Amino acid sequence: MSLCVRNIKRADAGVIDALAGFGVATTHEAQGRKGLLASHMRPIYRPAKIAGSAVTCEVAPGDNWMIHVAVEQCKPGDVLVVAPTSPCEDGYFGDLLATSLQAHGVRGLIIDAGVRDVAELTEMKFPVWSKAIFAQGTVKETIGNVNLPLVCAGALIHPGDVIVADDDGVVVVRREEAAAVAEKARAREANEGDKRARLAAGELGLDIYKMRERLAEKGLRWVDEA
Amino acid sequence: MSLCVRNIKRADAGVIDALAGFGVATTHEAQGRKGLLASHMRPIYRPAKIAGSAVTCEVAPGDNWMIHVAVEQCKPGDVLVVAPTSPCEDGYFGDLLATSLQAHGVRGLIIDAGVRDVAELTEMKFPVWSKAIFAQGTVKETIGNVNLPLVCAGALIHPGDVIVADDDGVVVVRREEAAAVAEKARAREANEGDKRARLAAGELGLDIYKMRERLAEKGLRWVDEA
Amino acid sequence: MSLCVRNIKRADAGVIDALAGFGVATTHEAQGRKGLLASHMRPIYRPAKIAGSAVTCEVAPGDNWMIHVAVEQCKPGDVLVVAPTSPCEDGYFGDLLATSLQAHGVRGLIIDAGVRDVAELTEMKFPVWSKAIFAQGTVKETIGNVNLPLVCAGALIHPGDVIVADDDGVVVVRREEAAAVAEKARAREANEGDKRARLAAGELGLDIYKMRERLAEKGLRWVDEA
Amino acid sequence: MSLCVRNIKRADAGVIDALAGFGVATTHEAQGRKGLLASHMRPIYRPAKIAGSAVTCEVAPGDNWMIHVAVEQCKPGDVLVVAPTSPCEDGYFGDLLATSLQAHGVRGLIIDAGVRDVAELTEMKFPVWSKAIFAQGTVKETIGNVNLPLVCAGALIHPGDVIVADDDGVVVVRREEAAAVAEKARAREANEGDKRARLAAGELGLDIYKMRERLAEKGLRWVDEA
Amino acid sequence: MSLCVRNIKRADAGVIDALAGFGVATTHEAQGRKGLLASHMRPIYRPAKIAGSAVTCEVAPGDNWMIHVAVEQCKPGDVLVVAPTSPCEDGYFGDLLATSLQAHGVRGLIIDAGVRDVAELTEMKFPVWSKAIFAQGTVKETIGNVNLPLVCAGALIHPGDVIVADDDGVVVVRREEAAAVAEKARAREANEGDKRARLAAGELGLDIYKMRERLAEKGLRWVDEA
Amino acid sequence: MSLCVRNIKRADAGVIDALAGFGVATTHEAQGRKGLLASHMRPIYRPAKIAGSAVTCEVAPGDNWMIHVAVEQCKPGDVLVVAPTSPCEDGYFGDLLATSLQAHGVRGLIIDAGVRDVAELTEMKFPVWSKAIFAQGTVKETIGNVNLPLVCAGALIHPGDVIVADDDGVVVVRREEAAAVAEKARAREANEGDKRARLAAGELGLDIYKMRERLAEKGLRWVDEA
Repeated sequence: MSLCVRNIKRADAGVIDALAGFGVATTHEAQGRKGLLASHMRPIYRPAKIAGSAVTCEVAPGDNWMIHVAVEQCKPGDVLVVAPTSPCEDGYFGDLLATSLQAHGVRGLIIDAGVRDVAELTEMKFPVWSKAIFAQGTVKETIGNVNLPLVCAGALIHPGDVIVADDDGVVVVRREEAAAVAEKARAREANEGDKRARLAAGELGLDIYKMRERLAEKGLRWVDEA
Repeated sequence: MSLCVRNIKRADAGVIDALAGFGVATTHEAQGRKGLLASHMRPIYRPAKIAGSAVTCEVAPGDNWMIHVAVEQCKPGDVLVVAPTSPCEDGYFGDLLATSLQAHGVRGLIIDAGVRDVAELTEMKFPVWSKAIFAQGTVKETIGNVNLPLVCAGALIHPGDVIVADDDGVVVVRREEAAAVAEKARAREANEGDKRARLAAGELGLDIYKMRERLAEKGLRWVDEA
Repeated sequence: MSLCVRNIKRADAGVIDALAGFGVATTHEAQGRKGLLASHMRPIYRPAKIAGSAVTCEVAPGDNWMIHVAVEQCKPGDVLVVAPTSPCEDGYFGDLLATSLQAHGVRGLIIDAGVRDVAELTEMKFPVWSKAIFAQGTVKETIGNVNLPLVCAGALIHPGDVIVADDDGVVVVRREEAAAVAEKARAREANEGDKRARLAAGELGLDIYKMRERLAEKGLRWVDEA
Repeated sequence: MSLCVRNIKRADAGVIDALAGFGVATTHEAQGRKGLLASHMRPIYRPAKIAGSAVTCEVAPGDNWMIHVAVEQCKPGDVLVVAPTSPCEDGYFGDLLATSLQAHGVRGLIIDAGVRDVAELTEMKFPVWSKAIFAQGTVKETIGNVNLPLVCAGALIHPGDVIVADDDGVVVVRREEAAAVAEKARAREANEGDKRARLAAGELGLDIYKMRERLAEKGLRWVDEA
Repeated sequence: MSLCVRNIKRADAGVIDALAGFGVATTHEAQGRKGLLASHMRPIYRPAKIAGSAVTCEVAPGDNWMIHVAVEQCKPGDVLVVAPTSPCEDGYFGDLLATSLQAHGVRGLIIDAGVRDVAELTEMKFPVWSKAIFAQGTVKETIGNVNLPLVCAGALIHPGDVIVADDDGVVVVRREEAAAVAEKARAREANEGDKRARLAAGELGLDIYKMRERLAEKGLRWVDEA
Repeated sequence: MSLCVRNIKRADAGVIDALAGFGVATTHEAQGRKGLLASHMRPIYRPAKIAGSAVTCEVAPGDNWMIHVAVEQCKPGDVLVVAPTSPCEDGYFGDLLATSLQAHGVRGLIIDAGVRDVAELTEMKFPVWSKAIFAQGTVKETIGNVNLPLVCAGALIHPGDVIVADDDGVVVVRREEAAAVAEKARAREANEGDKRARLAAGELGLDIYKMRERLAEKGLRWVDEA
């Protein structure tokens, strides 16, 4: 038996949009450097930058049937997250499914597998982060679960968690922690503005962060070339 | 001894151009999901979309001599297909060879190895699908076969077969089947237009394809989040 | 104990700029096909084309502390070269460090690891060649060496060597050989101009390079398709 | 801040030993084909077959400090599970740590990274499943969590879950489900005995599983070679 | 529609057994260095050395149904060759299927995917060359072709071709060429015996093969260390 | 032009044998964690453990000609180190070359490429560390350098450096530093004996290395499971 869970809880829309603005690297840092998906998850076009609530979808290798089930559970502002039960790079997703998701207000797709019709997806401005671009077709024979927690590209994702994705990759933020993470990200960004200005003026990180003494203690020595 | 086969048969030009229009994913589906080259074959720039008749060229690792032999066998509308006899990512091909191919009306290169001068190739609008971008030079010491069948990136390609390549990758269509495949692709695309419109209007694939009953039979259950 | 070597020797600025113009493939050929970094070193945006003097920086896995030390050793026209002591694809480098390097006139970064903030780096026009794009943060706990010779992506690089990088990848030229290599590259490019014109006019490489006889001697036979 | 959680709950010892007997493939099937770690997790010697309670240990890249913390939390019958916060193949573990674990009755190590001293570990009969064999040393500078849930080689593992590992790889069973899974595995194995005998006698799976009709319905046709 | 072709032609049994004796490297050389499967095809135990007639079996990703169909087409002395229609490393094959194949006299399995129960297969002395060892289970929902030509691990294999497999990997010999290849392999091996004796006596390949002059012509110079 | 350098300097035989005894991990640690070759360098059989003086040999992709040149430069106690000028996994080396090397007292082969005849090499007890096992044959057309410094599997190796190789992989020790490294390795091993005994008796590393206070300072907290 498999399950499709309806009416999942989602994070606050304002928080989600704030995280989209901060982007992946800042969000990842703000939540203590956790939640990153593996580096093989790359956008099909750049630049792209979104955040949304995860609708999770487990699929069998070479079988995209459950994506059709998942579409019905998506609401405006969501991000569809698809993971196969074993490694597969088939082209589970193309322009027809993207048309359907876009019609329902979905902001993008995260799939630890392949995608196709990428020229059309690029034209439609429907962003996808995937493991591969591959035209290989899929069948519709095997069921799986929708909106149960799953591991996607090495990260645990619960339905309703916030997905942030940009040119750097993809990070997941626990729904319950999203507001706090957004707050920390805001603080982090404010702090960075000052540092950016000082670095742009030529000041060294060695001095701004007062690293020289600790480096020397660890054993670093400065010498001139012989 | 090695062979260079002259005067290979080619598919009908109109059929080839039709397949170019349909692109890789549709062509692959229309011929029963076969003939795809491995997903590591990526275009050096995007968008790019071509079709043409395969001139096949077998090369030794790190040796691009036979490409010069193959150029002479190319006619306007052809696509050069190069595969090494063992895995290699050296830069077999650059702007000089591209100039030569372009002068003979060749539409692009498919190479299961490396390519270089990609900035120049991009400017020249000479599309290449390759396994790698790598400047490593090659020698001219070892011969191979031109226009014999070969396996390129996991797909069997006969000289004169139709190569279709776009942002999704590369697919080969048997010369003898090209007309029939083009016909099926045309039917497939017509059929997709209607579905695209219904999906864009918000209708669900679950309903369009009448999947609910079969999903339930397989054991899918819909439940609300606890 | 670790060392940070100051006041390294650099190649002549005119030679460096000449090599930038020739690019990676021509430079690599001109110096006898050596010095290429591995093909996994890819630019974060294209087109990009630079040359500069290497400041070398060894880092621990997941630890970007030494990059801050290396920044101080950079002068206008330099290229920072970073290699971890064991394979790592963490995001060692982002827009703050790029701001700092740009403020000191550094032309780009070569890093056999990951980089983040690539949207910002692209906007800043700060070019990076890296093994990965990955947002994973790093710590500042372990020291390493700056401006000692190191192996980066399979190539030996001495501080002050000339780094040439473009869309084809990255090549290193020994500082002592830079002037001679630039001279050979100039000759090579002049020679190529003539060949490009003949190839563009439709002449065959087989004839330009007089290959037919040697191919036949090796055993190549031309036959018509049966 | 990081946490080391003490006194975790464990599954019943009899259930754990039963699962060890069934091995990875049967256990994986019995629990509905979930919980497998990625196929890159390979035993350092064969044959090897264990089961035990997971003590989970998160480590920084290139830093094995937390393994020392985790050792104290291990009890006889446990299996240590180590995952780095970003991909790393350094040699986190060698014969000294194995001596320590063996002294505390630990049955083996699962590590999504590298291991060294494999000749000694083989002689000691201390089994390890790892991503790599690599002598690269690690530092002790950065802390992480012990006995919090983590993702190891693509699988979610809670402390106290049952780890089953053999020549086929590694699978995790939820602690709460372990008894039920063992029961299903027992039933599965009983059923397989009968089938094995019939297959050994030359009977065909096509007939035992009555597949011919359904294959024909799907469209399979038997023909003689032309 | 899919096909299962019955009553394929096979090569002469004496020729097949002779090729088994020569092994992969010698057979590959004897037939002009073609027909090798990719180097990722590794034996699950060593030593192992077989040859047999190929029964070819195409499978969908994650679906082993067609292997059951293929078993019926196997005769004593055959080797089963399985390739998925897109890359997959699931565990398509285990001890039950091996029991069935062994009951029908099949000598081994070549599969460009995963295999499981490798401890049992090793004990049974049923040799397998595979891309991966992975316990992931498969379904039985999608049909494919048996005994049509297919590409397996980069090599084209026709039903009835001779498969030779040993610790070095796997090579395929066209059925029609098998006798001639065996003859050439015999000659090659005879020739090698003499060379082996001279090399064992300390004579240099440089002298046996008279390489010194040609090396010098190409530009090799011998110098003493400075 | 290429060079073959004769009469290279070698390290003291006693030092070399001492390093063989310490093995890769200890040697690597004793010299400050440098000199390791990449983890893809694996022994073709285990256990295997050697040390010797490096004779270095640069080869073209798919061309093993220079190995014949290198054999002449080998003396009893040497280890042959082969690296291709671009990535290649062809089978450069088999039982005939091994017979020749063994006749001259060479202790083993380190090759960042492929090797074949591994069953015979195993029987002969001629150890090889390689990137791949692959039967693909090579040609003899292109020359390279013997006994010049080269980068092999990411490590810089000078002729006459000491190579240490065992089941953990391969490490290189500068010839000039070999005696000092052996001395440090001896000290390290003596120190480890005491620790091994204490760990075997059940004492914790946390206590032996007095880690508890520093862990707490960094922010580690011990808590009981809720």
